[in-house]
Amino acid sequence: MPATYISEKIIARLSLYRRLLSNLLLDGVQNVYSHQLATMAGVSAAQVRRDMMAVGYNGTPVKGYTISDLIESIDRMLDSTHGQTVAIVGMGNLGRAIAAYFGNRKPNLSVRAAFDNDVEKIGHIVDGIECFHVSEFPRVAEERKIEVAVITVPAHAAQPVADLLTHSRVKGLLNFAPVRLRVPDDVYVENMDMAVSLEKVAYFARAGAPRRRGQA
Amino acid sequence: MPATYISEKIIARLSLYRRLLSNLLLDGVQNVYSHQLATMAGVSAAQVRRDMMAVGYNGTPVKGYTISDLIESIDRMLDSTHGQTVAIVGMGNLGRAIAAYFGNRKPNLSVRAAFDNDVEKIGHIVDGIECFHVSEFPRVAEERKIEVAVITVPAHAAQPVADLLTHSRVKGLLNFAPVRLRVPDDVYVENMDMAVSLEKVAYFARAGAPRRRGQA
Repeated sequence: MPATYISEKIIARLSLYRRLLSNLLLDGVQNVYSHQLATMAGVSAAQVRRDMMAVGYNGTPVKGYTISDLIESIDRMLDSTHGQTVAIVGMGNLGRAIAAYFGNRKPNLSVRAAFDNDVEKIGHIVDGIECFHVSEFPRVAEERKIEVAVITVPAHAAQPVADLLTHSRVKGLLNFAPVRLRVPDDVYVENMDMAVSLEKVAYFARAGAPRRRGQA
Repeated sequence: MPATYISEKIIARLSLYRRLLSNLLLDGVQNVYSHQLATMAGVSAAQVRRDMMAVGYNGTPVKGYTISDLIESIDRMLDSTHGQTVAIVGMGNLGRAIAAYFGNRKPNLSVRAAFDNDVEKIGHIVDGIECFHVSEFPRVAEERKIEVAVITVPAHAAQPVADLLTHSRVKGLLNFAPVRLRVPDDVYVENMDMAVSLEKVAYFARAGAPRRRGQA
């Protein structure tokens, strides 16, 4: 647990910065100024500088930030030292697309099991991930130390699935089902509500976009 | 354009309320109290009441809100009277999953075209949606009055695609590509950044969930 309170927004921005910085590094860039990173992330330069202070990194005024050092500082904040294991529950179209999307991530946050109730999928490797019956979750979660899960089951199945997962050892849920889940206080839920987001985009496409400064 | 300024958060909550209310109606329920709706949406009852005032609806203290009337009030706020047409650009795994997900939505916000650069898909009906080459976007967007688009192309293609779309008539983008898009001021972008969200969930699974009141 970090010594100081770090907000959800900071964590989201750090994750974004790290991805942008990694891309720069792949392009052979070694240093970046806060205002450059700010433009890429859609936030203010002052915001970038405050966030860098939160991870304990200070750039030199002449050359800006050293990208590799900055990534390391963010790694220390964001990554678990022991690695974290993710499960995907619900291997329909969306679950499989997400499995493919997260499939080639770095080892400290890896998808290591999938769950479904379709006997066609169970016991097989689906998109590179071993697929189990959802009733096996408690056992597999214990064996593979699963503490994060992505829920991609239909709406009516989401709450029973969330109950099963949080009664095992899961402490974080990325929920794509269009319901609000009831979970214990120590479980973190992030809702990816695509229907709500599409309606929001449709509304503001029509009504005019509100003025705002980035949305990292 | 609405007479008063309506925030992004209100629009998101109204969309969620409407879905919850529609589900209640399907279950044969006709009235709901603000505190019941609040619990389902994960917000406070006072929040629900303020939002209902924003759509011009007032419940009666005895029976609560009449669900059908409330849905109608939300419809008037959220829906276009002429209907809105959505395109999906990028029909890989994720695009197809999203096409299937949004496929059976109501007619006033319907997916009416898909775009890709894979010749295998072009000219075919993919998941019930006609698929065109992305270079045809300007023509098809004009014909079908597309003003909302979902971007599900790879990261490197997202900015050129966004440029093409916003130079046509698109005013709203739901962006699944892991980049921050540069768009004209009058275009609304909602980022669905799954990688950032997963890292956030992983962090708080480990660090402990922050206390909060709902997240509609």
